[in-house]
Amino acid sequence: MRTVDLIQRKRDGEELAPEEIDYLIQGYTAGDIPDYQMSSFLMATFFSGMTDREVSRLTECMLSSGDRVDLSGIEGVKVDKHSTGGVGDKTSFIVAPLAAAAGVVVPMMSGRALGHTGGTLDKLESIPGFRTNITPDEFRNQLAEIGLAFIGQSDQLAPADRKLYALRDVTGTVESIPLISSSIMSKKLAEGIDALVLDVKVGSGAFMKKQVDARRLAQAMVGIGRRMDKKVQALITDMNQPLGYAIGNALEIMEASQTLQNAGPADLTKLSLELAARMIFLGKKAASLDEARRTAEKHLVDGSAYRKFKQAVQAQGGNPQALDKFELLPNATGMREITSPRGGYVAAIDAEDIGVASNMIGAGRDKKEDAIDPAVGIILEVKAGEKVDAGSVLCRIYYTKEDRVDEAAEMVEDAFRISAQKPDERELILEVVG
Amino acid sequence: MRTVDLIQRKRDGEELAPEEIDYLIQGYTAGDIPDYQMSSFLMATFFSGMTDREVSRLTECMLSSGDRVDLSGIEGVKVDKHSTGGVGDKTSFIVAPLAAAAGVVVPMMSGRALGHTGGTLDKLESIPGFRTNITPDEFRNQLAEIGLAFIGQSDQLAPADRKLYALRDVTGTVESIPLISSSIMSKKLAEGIDALVLDVKVGSGAFMKKQVDARRLAQAMVGIGRRMDKKVQALITDMNQPLGYAIGNALEIMEASQTLQNAGPADLTKLSLELAARMIFLGKKAASLDEARRTAEKHLVDGSAYRKFKQAVQAQGGNPQALDKFELLPNATGMREITSPRGGYVAAIDAEDIGVASNMIGAGRDKKEDAIDPAVGIILEVKAGEKVDAGSVLCRIYYTKEDRVDEAAEMVEDAFRISAQKPDERELILEVVG
Repeated sequence: MRTVDLIQRKRDGEELAPEEIDYLIQGYTAGDIPDYQMSSFLMATFFSGMTDREVSRLTECMLSSGDRVDLSGIEGVKVDKHSTGGVGDKTSFIVAPLAAAAGVVVPMMSGRALGHTGGTLDKLESIPGFRTNITPDEFRNQLAEIGLAFIGQSDQLAPADRKLYALRDVTGTVESIPLISSSIMSKKLAEGIDALVLDVKVGSGAFMKKQVDARRLAQAMVGIGRRMDKKVQALITDMNQPLGYAIGNALEIMEASQTLQNAGPADLTKLSLELAARMIFLGKKAASLDEARRTAEKHLVDGSAYRKFKQAVQAQGGNPQALDKFELLPNATGMREITSPRGGYVAAIDAEDIGVASNMIGAGRDKKEDAIDPAVGIILEVKAGEKVDAGSVLCRIYYTKEDRVDEAAEMVEDAFRISAQKPDERELILEVVG
Repeated sequence: MRTVDLIQRKRDGEELAPEEIDYLIQGYTAGDIPDYQMSSFLMATFFSGMTDREVSRLTECMLSSGDRVDLSGIEGVKVDKHSTGGVGDKTSFIVAPLAAAAGVVVPMMSGRALGHTGGTLDKLESIPGFRTNITPDEFRNQLAEIGLAFIGQSDQLAPADRKLYALRDVTGTVESIPLISSSIMSKKLAEGIDALVLDVKVGSGAFMKKQVDARRLAQAMVGIGRRMDKKVQALITDMNQPLGYAIGNALEIMEASQTLQNAGPADLTKLSLELAARMIFLGKKAASLDEARRTAEKHLVDGSAYRKFKQAVQAQGGNPQALDKFELLPNATGMREITSPRGGYVAAIDAEDIGVASNMIGAGRDKKEDAIDPAVGIILEVKAGEKVDAGSVLCRIYYTKEDRVDEAAEMVEDAFRISAQKPDERELILEVVG
C-alpha cells in the first residue's frame, strides 16, 4: 500500500477500503506517514467527501487510537450532551443537572475555551475551589453516587484525532463535514456513553454559518452513532445572537444558577429544557418525549436540578454557596456601558463579534497556553427584536484591566445592528435530526 | 499574510493576488512555509484551478527563483522544442538538426529518463564519448559556431519548481494543468529562448490520457508564453503506440540516424518534419509555414541536417562515425522474439506497457540514482493497423542480463492487442494550439 496512491484515489472520488483508512490513520499517528502527505489527503477529503462507511471507519480508527473510559460498572443509561460551540452557551450547567435529577447518569466531558467560543471547564473553574482535573476513579465514584460529574477530556482519548486536528487547523482543512463529525464522535464515543444529545449551532456565532451545513453535520454524526449502536439525537439551534444575556466565565455561572432557579432568560431556559428532555428520553427515564419534557420542567420548577448541581459542585471541591452569593465568585473591577446610537429595533447581535470582544478583555484565549480572567465578560441588556431608544444601554462590558477595553467596546458597538423595522422573529430550535 | 488564509482562499475558489503567490513560493523555497501547508495548497489548486494571472505569476516566481541562461550574445532567434514525454520519442535528434540546418539557433536543454519515458540525455550518452555536461561557456560557443548544442538542465534553473515537483510527486498533486504548465514553462523560459515548440503527447503512453486534457495543458502553456512575450506553438500528438519502432537508448539513436538519412519510420519522419517546420517558422527562417515545411524537407533529403547532427556530436566529444557504424554503439547480447498468438490486425500497442517493459530490462530508471543500460530495449516489427499471422514476430526484446526478461516479455505480449477487425486509422498530429 502506498500513501500517494490512497491520496490519489480519494482525490479522484473513489471509496477507500476499511483497511486503507486504518493504514492512513495508524501510519500517521505512529509517525510513519508524514504531515505533508496527510494534509494533502485531508484537502482531497475536503473536496471529495467520504462515504458513510469511510467516515465510520475513520471514527472507529481514531477512537481505538487511545483509551476508552469504562463506565460499565455504573448502573443506568449514560447520556452526554455535546454542543458544537457557541457564544454564551452555558446549557451544560443546566441540562446536565436536569437530566441527572431525573435519574439519568450524566458523564460530562468537556473542553476549554478556544477562539471566540467559551469552554465548560474554564467556566466551572471560576467557582472557588472547583476541580475539573479529578481522577477517573473519582469521576466514576461521583457518577455512581450522584449521577453527575464534570471532567476534562483526557489527552489519552482519541490521540489520532488530536494530531489530525492540529494539522487541519494550519492547512485549511477544518471545514469538512466528514472530518468534523468523525473528530467529535471519536472523542464522545471514547467516553463510554450509551446515548448522546447534540446541539449543533448555526449562525454568525457558530462554526456552521448555514443551516444546510449544520444539517449535514448533524446527519453525519447521528449516522456514525447509529452505525455504532449508540442513540444519538441532534438539535439544530440558532446562534445568530448569544444565548442568554451573559458572556464570560463567572458571569455565565451566575446566569446558569439563576436559570436553575427558574429565573433565567427565556431562550436559555427553553433550549435547556428541550436538550434535557431528549437526554431523559434517550436515558429511558420517560416513556415518551412529551413525558420527558414534563419531567425536565418539574425538576426545574421544584429546585431539584439546582440542588443536583450544587451537589456536584461540592463533590468536586467547589463552594456551592457561591451559586447563591455571587460576591463569592470572581468579580470585575471596571464596567463600561455601550449605548445605542439611535432609536429603533435590535435587528441582530453578531455573536462572533461579541465572543471576540469578550476574548480581548481576557475571557477567552487565542492560544492554548493563554491564561483567562474568570471575572470579565459582557452582559447584554437587550436581545434581537427588542425596541431601543437613542442612548439606551445595549450591553455592559465588565473588565479588570483597561488594556484593550476601547478596542473591545468598538467591536461590541459594531456587533449591534439597529434598524427602523422590527425584524422577523427567529426560531431558536430550528430542526431535529435523528 | 497567513499561509492558512491563502490556502483557504484558494480552496474556496478565490483568485490570489500576485504578491500572495510570491509569498507562498518564496516562503516555501526559503523553507519558511512547511511542506504540510504547501501540499495542502497544491491539492486545493488541483481542485480549484488557477486563473491566467495566477498561473503566469506562479511561473514568473519559479523562473526568478534561480539562474537564467543568457543567450543574448548569440545572434539569431533561439528556438527550443519540448515534448511532454512519450515512449520511443527520439524527435529531438532529428528536429533540432533540421531547424539548425535551416539557420535557427537551437539550444536543446533536456532531462533524463524517469518512469516509463526515456530521456534525451541518456540516449545521447549512448554515443561513445558524448558529453552532455558541457559548461555554459562551451554551450554558448557551440551555439554561436554551429547553431546546435545539447545540454542537461542545470539544477540552478527554477529551483522552486524542483522543490515543488518533489512534493507534488508524493502528495498526489502532479496531475494539475496549472501546476504542470507552470513547471514546464518556468524551466523552459529560464533557458533564454525566444520561441518554443511544444509536443504535447496524448494517449496510453503519455501523461495526458485524454485529448481534452492535452488541449487544456497546451493552451495553458501557450498562454503563459504569450503573456511573457515568447512565441509558443503546440502540437497535440498521438501516443497510443510508441513513436517509430525503436525503444531504448542506443536503439533510438540508431533509428534517429536512419531517419536523418531519410530512411526512417513514416510516423517519426512526419512528426519530426512538422515540429522542425514550426521551429523554422518561429525562428524566422521562412516567411510562411508552408515554406518552412519545404525548407525542413529539403534539409532532410539533402543530408544537411544529418551532417549538422554529426557536427554537434563531434563538438561534444562523441564519435560521429558511430552514427553510421552501429557496431560502435553499445549492443545487446541477447534477443528474444515475441510472436503473435493468432492472426488478425494489430489493434493497439500499449505504449506505457512497452515503456515499462523496456525499463525492466534496464533501459530506464525508477529512481534518480538508478544506472541505465544503453544497449537494451525493444524493436517493434509491426505497428497498429498492420495485419499479422499467428506466430509472426511482433517485436524483439534486446537485453544484456537475463534477470527480468521473462517478466518484460509477458508485459510486452500484453501490450499488443490483436483483433479480427482492421482498426480505424489514427491521426498522428491531432491538433495545433497557438
